Amino acid sequence: MLTISDGVTHGVRTDSSGPALAARLTALGFDVTRGLVPDERRLIAAAVRGAARDHVLVVSTGGTGLAPRDVTPQALHELLDYEVPGFGEVMRAEGRRSTPFAVLSRSLAGVLGRTLVVALPGSERGAVESFEAITPLLDHALATLGGDAGPHPPLAGAAADDSGRHGDDDTTGGDDPGRDRNAADRPESGERDDTGGGSSGAEPGSILSGPPRELPPTGSG
Amino acid sequence: MLTISDGVTHGVRTDSSGPALAARLTALGFDVTRGLVPDERRLIAAAVRGAARDHVLVVSTGGTGLAPRDVTPQALHELLDYEVPGFGEVMRAEGRRSTPFAVLSRSLAGVLGRTLVVALPGSERGAVESFEAITPLLDHALATLGGDAGPHPPLAGAAADDSGRHGDDDTTGGDDPGRDRNAADRPESGERDDTGGGSSGAEPGSILSGPPRELPPTGSG
Amino acid sequence: MLTISDGVTHGVRTDSSGPALAARLTALGFDVTRGLVPDERRLIAAAVRGAARDHVLVVSTGGTGLAPRDVTPQALHELLDYEVPGFGEVMRAEGRRSTPFAVLSRSLAGVLGRTLVVALPGSERGAVESFEAITPLLDHALATLGGDAGPHPPLAGAAADDSGRHGDDDTTGGDDPGRDRNAADRPESGERDDTGGGSSGAEPGSILSGPPRELPPTGSG
Repeated sequence: MLTISDGVTHGVRTDSSGPALAARLTALGFDVTRGLVPDERRLIAAAVRGAARDHVLVVSTGGTGLAPRDVTPQALHELLDYEVPGFGEVMRAEGRRSTPFAVLSRSLAGVLGRTLVVALPGSERGAVESFEAITPLLDHALATLGGDAGPHPPLAGAAADDSGRHGDDDTTGGDDPGRDRNAADRPESGERDDTGGGSSGAEPGSILSGPPRELPPTGSG
Repeated sequence: MLTISDGVTHGVRTDSSGPALAARLTALGFDVTRGLVPDERRLIAAAVRGAARDHVLVVSTGGTGLAPRDVTPQALHELLDYEVPGFGEVMRAEGRRSTPFAVLSRSLAGVLGRTLVVALPGSERGAVESFEAITPLLDHALATLGGDAGPHPPLAGAAADDSGRHGDDDTTGGDDPGRDRNAADRPESGERDDTGGGSSGAEPGSILSGPPRELPPTGSG
Repeated sequence: MLTISDGVTHGVRTDSSGPALAARLTALGFDVTRGLVPDERRLIAAAVRGAARDHVLVVSTGGTGLAPRDVTPQALHELLDYEVPGFGEVMRAEGRRSTPFAVLSRSLAGVLGRTLVVALPGSERGAVESFEAITPLLDHALATLGGDAGPHPPLAGAAADDSGRHGDDDTTGGDDPGRDRNAADRPESGERDDTGGGSSGAEPGSILSGPPRELPPTGSG
């Protein structure tokens, strides 16, 4: 989990969204690792890229506002393999129930390799409300990204690996030393009703922040 | 109408969304031709480009999911002259009434030349529900794209042809040997209420799948 | 405020959205200057760029439809520093309450330097309804863009100026001869409830159309 803020980086601002969001993620069963990055496109991209190498989910807070100094979306537009526009749409649509200013948030999500990357606002309220809007989707999204549980059956001799970085489509997880697959272990849930309750009972996943690349698997399932 | 799927192409998956959608289109008065393409960006782009040369509407199903093997949106981002973001937004917003996972669909629509291109999900339910969300818009959209019935009156000596490929703005249709204008024959309906019923009574249009380029006009209007 | 239309430019169409929108803006306390541009990407980009040099808000009407001759979004995609997707989303979502065809509008907004640029439809109804959907956001958005009232405190020795064009983060306004800061004078309002009434009581801002670059401050606050 990455907090993206000049103010927090320079010690002139307290990070409130980071702890609040980490608590939510922990409650959902994720192992959370946190990091801090200033509002610099190059540094944001490097931190997200590094985190995505070892983890199935990267969540950032901050830098999604309207001001020219907010550059998280620009950094991700360049970095992500592809974006998933419904995430931003639903975070803003749900946010409008609380405040019309949710429209101004440039929150977004997309995919890098097989990692889901989600960029949330920096305010505690904005980050938590946006995250709650997408919580019911996380299990399904991570399972789909995790490998061949998705809609495409594996082709003989051709693993469904377009990223060129992960040669392993095994969804039984845990055997890839450079990648925590805990969250990807979950079986594809297919069509379900919205339980409204998110991921209770989910096995733990892991969210990395910051550039360290060769983490051992957290394995805290 | 293009079914985009590795599984269907390789015979390991049955196409259910294709027939369901073809039935809907036929019921709306469209002449439907179908094709099948694997999940390869280059092949998707070639098939859509070929189909758009001769037809006013190209509809694809499949390849809009979250997995790295889903590449239809990426292929269309590069190919289309411009996208019309409201189509994707409304397909997801309406889909959320059935399932929260509609958020994950990267359904979209846009314009290539004067052809409307719509990319729907591969699941039967997702494809049909998404299509129903945009059905009330099709007549108006195709009429606007068909020529000078749109909001811009023709300028003397300067046909409203930005694509460089269709030098003919005549909306009386049928005289362009390389292009079926049936769907574009309809008069601009202007402001109307949402009848909720789509295009009942519409004259037939045509939807091509696959690369054949020099089709005669279907002329079944 | 820019009216973008071939028809109006060539005298074959009457601009109805321009006067209607100007009246709304004036009622909100803005000083409105108007201009007229044909549907040409290069001319649209030049007009918006010129207007943004001197003003905090640039509003255009027209050229956002589905037809190939509608090129305002394409011109802005290239020109803007970044887009703010929630503006287009909320304009279409609110517009759907009146007509399903609001989905077809490619309305959008984004930021150029520290200027908010908003592109509305050319129809009077579409322009006014879209503008009303974003009216409650304008004060907050302009204050955020106006300088250091935003979420990022100024860093010592490094003004929050990413545009390379405006070296002045002072929000007390009026002392920048090349830029009207009236609208930016307003204090950051922070979290507020949606009053539903827009900006009554706001100090006047200014909306420029056309390329004149060295306007004196209007100073009519």
